Amino acid sequence: MGEKDHSDRRLAGGGALTYATLEAIEHARGATSDPFERAALLADLCRLNTLYMIMLAGSGHIGSSFSAMDLITWLWTEELVNANSGEPGADTYFSSKGHDAPALYSLLIALGKLEFDLLHRLRRLGGLPGHPDVGTPFIAANTGSLGMGISKAYGMLRGRRQAGKAGRVVLMIGDGELQEGQIWESLQPVANERLGDIVAIVDHNKYQSDATVAAVSDLGRIDDKFRAFGWEVRRADGHDFRAIRDGFAHFASVTDRPKVLIADTIKGKGVSFMEGLSCGDQTYQFHAGAPALEHYLAAVGELTDRINRRLATRGRTALTFASAPQPVRTPPSAPERLVVAYGDELLKIAKTRPEIIVFDADLLSDCGIEAFKEQLPERFIECGIAEQHMVSAAGGMALAGLLPIVHSFASFLSTRANEQIYNNATERTKIIYAATLAGLVPGGPGHSHQSVRDISAVGSVPGLVAIEPCSEREARLAIRWAIEENASSTYLRFVSVPMDLPYALPPSYALRVGRGVLLREGRDIALVGYGPLLMANAWHAADELAPQGISAAVVNLPWLNRVDEAWLREALARFPTIVTLDNHYVALGQGVMIAAAVARAGVGADVRSIGLIDTPACGSNAEVLAHHGVDAASIAAAARSAWRRATRASA
Amino acid sequence: MGEKDHSDRRLAGGGALTYATLEAIEHARGATSDPFERAALLADLCRLNTLYMIMLAGSGHIGSSFSAMDLITWLWTEELVNANSGEPGADTYFSSKGHDAPALYSLLIALGKLEFDLLHRLRRLGGLPGHPDVGTPFIAANTGSLGMGISKAYGMLRGRRQAGKAGRVVLMIGDGELQEGQIWESLQPVANERLGDIVAIVDHNKYQSDATVAAVSDLGRIDDKFRAFGWEVRRADGHDFRAIRDGFAHFASVTDRPKVLIADTIKGKGVSFMEGLSCGDQTYQFHAGAPALEHYLAAVGELTDRINRRLATRGRTALTFASAPQPVRTPPSAPERLVVAYGDELLKIAKTRPEIIVFDADLLSDCGIEAFKEQLPERFIECGIAEQHMVSAAGGMALAGLLPIVHSFASFLSTRANEQIYNNATERTKIIYAATLAGLVPGGPGHSHQSVRDISAVGSVPGLVAIEPCSEREARLAIRWAIEENASSTYLRFVSVPMDLPYALPPSYALRVGRGVLLREGRDIALVGYGPLLMANAWHAADELAPQGISAAVVNLPWLNRVDEAWLREALARFPTIVTLDNHYVALGQGVMIAAAVARAGVGADVRSIGLIDTPACGSNAEVLAHHGVDAASIAAAARSAWRRATRASA
Repeated sequence: MGEKDHSDRRLAGGGALTYATLEAIEHARGATSDPFERAALLADLCRLNTLYMIMLAGSGHIGSSFSAMDLITWLWTEELVNANSGEPGADTYFSSKGHDAPALYSLLIALGKLEFDLLHRLRRLGGLPGHPDVGTPFIAANTGSLGMGISKAYGMLRGRRQAGKAGRVVLMIGDGELQEGQIWESLQPVANERLGDIVAIVDHNKYQSDATVAAVSDLGRIDDKFRAFGWEVRRADGHDFRAIRDGFAHFASVTDRPKVLIADTIKGKGVSFMEGLSCGDQTYQFHAGAPALEHYLAAVGELTDRINRRLATRGRTALTFASAPQPVRTPPSAPERLVVAYGDELLKIAKTRPEIIVFDADLLSDCGIEAFKEQLPERFIECGIAEQHMVSAAGGMALAGLLPIVHSFASFLSTRANEQIYNNATERTKIIYAATLAGLVPGGPGHSHQSVRDISAVGSVPGLVAIEPCSEREARLAIRWAIEENASSTYLRFVSVPMDLPYALPPSYALRVGRGVLLREGRDIALVGYGPLLMANAWHAADELAPQGISAAVVNLPWLNRVDEAWLREALARFPTIVTLDNHYVALGQGVMIAAAVARAGVGADVRSIGLIDTPACGSNAEVLAHHGVDAASIAAAARSAWRRATRASA
Repeated sequence: MGEKDHSDRRLAGGGALTYATLEAIEHARGATSDPFERAALLADLCRLNTLYMIMLAGSGHIGSSFSAMDLITWLWTEELVNANSGEPGADTYFSSKGHDAPALYSLLIALGKLEFDLLHRLRRLGGLPGHPDVGTPFIAANTGSLGMGISKAYGMLRGRRQAGKAGRVVLMIGDGELQEGQIWESLQPVANERLGDIVAIVDHNKYQSDATVAAVSDLGRIDDKFRAFGWEVRRADGHDFRAIRDGFAHFASVTDRPKVLIADTIKGKGVSFMEGLSCGDQTYQFHAGAPALEHYLAAVGELTDRINRRLATRGRTALTFASAPQPVRTPPSAPERLVVAYGDELLKIAKTRPEIIVFDADLLSDCGIEAFKEQLPERFIECGIAEQHMVSAAGGMALAGLLPIVHSFASFLSTRANEQIYNNATERTKIIYAATLAGLVPGGPGHSHQSVRDISAVGSVPGLVAIEPCSEREARLAIRWAIEENASSTYLRFVSVPMDLPYALPPSYALRVGRGVLLREGRDIALVGYGPLLMANAWHAADELAPQGISAAVVNLPWLNRVDEAWLREALARFPTIVTLDNHYVALGQGVMIAAAVARAGVGADVRSIGLIDTPACGSNAEVLAHHGVDAASIAAAARSAWRRATRASA
């Protein structure tokens, strides 16, 4: 599930990115009538285009795309019937893991099922989302958050049967994904109903986000497990097209139960130095994020050589590949990295507090706790992709008198383990939940990873105080406050994107529950929010408003579910207009609490709230922020209109 | 998980309830030095006292308590070392299913570990909660929501090891509970770490809330499943103390892996006519709720006869049992049953709309859909206790063009399947979620079942409209609106307790998004809320305020996450004081949205919000409502103080 956002990385010297055109692909596919050879050629061309898409986007999952590439190539060209056409009798295919979306996109483009121009628009607004979305043609389900696939397949198949339609549902599951409980929850009903038209493929590449599956949370005897749940199991080399064919041929003869093909694959298959050899608990380097230019160029060299060698043996001319300039991105000049600062401060505190135990769900480096694991391994617990287990285990640990600190991405921690967080709260123990990748950006991964609902999801948990720091300094203060001062539990919400920040907290600043701090003085409007994304954009909005004669203050209120009404009166009552900002849905975000507090405190300000109202779009960070109206320009425009309304009303 | 609330049932003629005093229990335990005979005697005495507690409380799980009774009796008297004492080397025991709490309470009382007087206070404020809570001595974990036990045990054990303490963690799991994915999610990490000090017992009584496990969602080969996950498995008759002893003796010899005792038990064991014979998909009658008086008296007869016969064979005199009067409860005279009305209307509509498919998670009768299953079985899908699977399956079904209607208790549906509901929403399909047992009451089951967080948990899901109807008529309107008028998804929230309602909706009333309706005219204060519980209590509060010269209007706003600002101005701007009411946490309930809308709309009213601020207490309905300040008297008092503050301010 890891997400490395390299969209801000300047690629030294720029360079040309290589892709295969539709003509080149068709030329290659026409070179042979041997289906295995044809599939091998097509898969490598798709690998080339997958790499191109990821380099252009600046992020994407190479390892997972490449391990699944041969399987999906064979499925879509030789096995599936009218896949995803919706016709009676047609098969349905989708990837439950979803992280291999670039592989499927490149294949659908190669097969003419998606417009070729989309090749240039991975993770861009209106283009191809980082994880699958049914808004894209031939994409059958929204995935990316893990473990839902078999349940969805069950519903689809029952639905198709209800409508009198035949056809199979074939889905791809990651091996790390098998750590999610929902997978096992969904196996039994499918077996009990003897749904022989459901075929799952496990892309068993032995790696997950952080390290090897065996090192993170070993799967044990997966064949036995599926069999014990009543599934027909077949094991095959997922890069051997004959073995894949034979597996499906075998499945055709079994009609009274669901089937699973456990496909032994190699993460990063197809580019020698990207292929996962056993790294144990070392991090695999090509899980997420665009590779460095030198790696990219070497990979292109390998792939194009192999493609052309294959063509040469068929007596065909070498392909000419197209190229496009590598985008040059302007990185932040001196960005603050809140998650890194958090992890550093946590480690420092933990060294003096033996009661601290860190829990992780396969997002070690994304949560800033790599050094913790290295330096305090006896107090580090890796749970794998098992958020519910992790949170309840932390609950048990807290009952034993220790202080668990639980890590994952905000979108998974706050929702997958929602009931478990509440259950822990009812035990009145103290637990710290550290949730990264919060908010709208990075915009590339798409809505499964854009956590814009977590304030609402956890904000009402009794005793749980939610905080989002706006700078490295506030991140350090926040974890220290959660450990040393807060008697109850804390939810720490972090924006993961490194950002240049135009403001600094006052030197004397300390966290006080429900009370904010003025970052920038102003007279007419208070822009109130939290976190680096909102505060930086509010600051730039204030810059824009100043020459228009509107003086906007910027107020940081890191408390996401606490508003001190006395502070509100002191700090905000003097502003005729208050604009609340949410890096979250407006519905049940911080803004609604501020607005309610304004009403309850009898502050007579005009209140306007900015934030999301629809499912987050996928795109570059700038695109997404503008699309949802939370970039500086949109904030300035909204503030200006609120100000005009207020001045008209008072005139 | 079912909850039958019979606390309002008048028991014809009253009667005497029988229990064994501590003296009687000690006399019986002293009658024999044979541990098996002693355990049998004690278990039956505890069954008697369990029945007493449940009759007094008016609800509780008999079947699950009785099937586990022999196991926990043996464990606590012969197997566990210093159980739950917290001492170094002590064992820890808890029940993951939690529904057997009355059995454990009666045992802890019999062993002198809980004060005897608590026998009279099951499900009462300050007494023994309906499901376990760590606030009670010797209760090691909060359970009742299913599937969290093994994860908690893992955390406890790792925590104890971290603190240098020895001892096992032994936990009880229900067989229906094995349908929860978290169980399987948690098995592997425990096995991978070879935690031989975790022992799980499956109380395999073959029944769950609705029917037999085999009929609801068959578990298949559970021995094989646990083995495939790396656990040591032993099977035993859970009512044969020698077999239980032998199982634990075997486990003592296995130190390199966790162990599970699959205990074959009989639901309702110990009272002939309560023992579960195979009912297939017929409902088992003694799952939840107090039995009828005649059944109770017959059960007491059986148990006391057997106890005294056993004593007689040991040459001991018969025990004298104590008795207490059966409480006489005043039932509502003409209660409205919203869930029943909902189910009836749904069935009516479904007969003309073949696209409707109903999903259930083992709460058939609690969700008003028994008749649906009976009359339209081909459009009814039973998922078992597998909310995540159910919700994602509904998502797949909706993608196939059908209209899924998904049922469970609000506390489970909104939180266990939280991410799945969101994922479905991102696919922009239409799904209806029907959530019953919402709000503070019934107060008996305790916080695992009191859903006071669901508006917050689902309220920000994009496109999802949340409604709570206030009467049978509005319940019918709501499901019809969700099916026929709403283009997107709906969350229907229902109070399950039957109530007399002092108001009626205007004859011409129709649902209009975000717009409320005046139920009672008033001048000074608007009491605004939703649902039968709040509206009835607001009405009675208004009755109380009237003679004090305060004229309170009662306004029903069934829209939990939509407020139409134009309606707000029309309907509420005339009130100097608005009191919002939430059968939910104040934080992120409807009240905060109304207060925010007041601020945004520039309505100058004084706003006060009433609702929960802490974990819900367990108790009788009246106790719980008063405790949390949402009964009529508390609402009247709060409204009066708000009114005084407003009139002072304007004076």
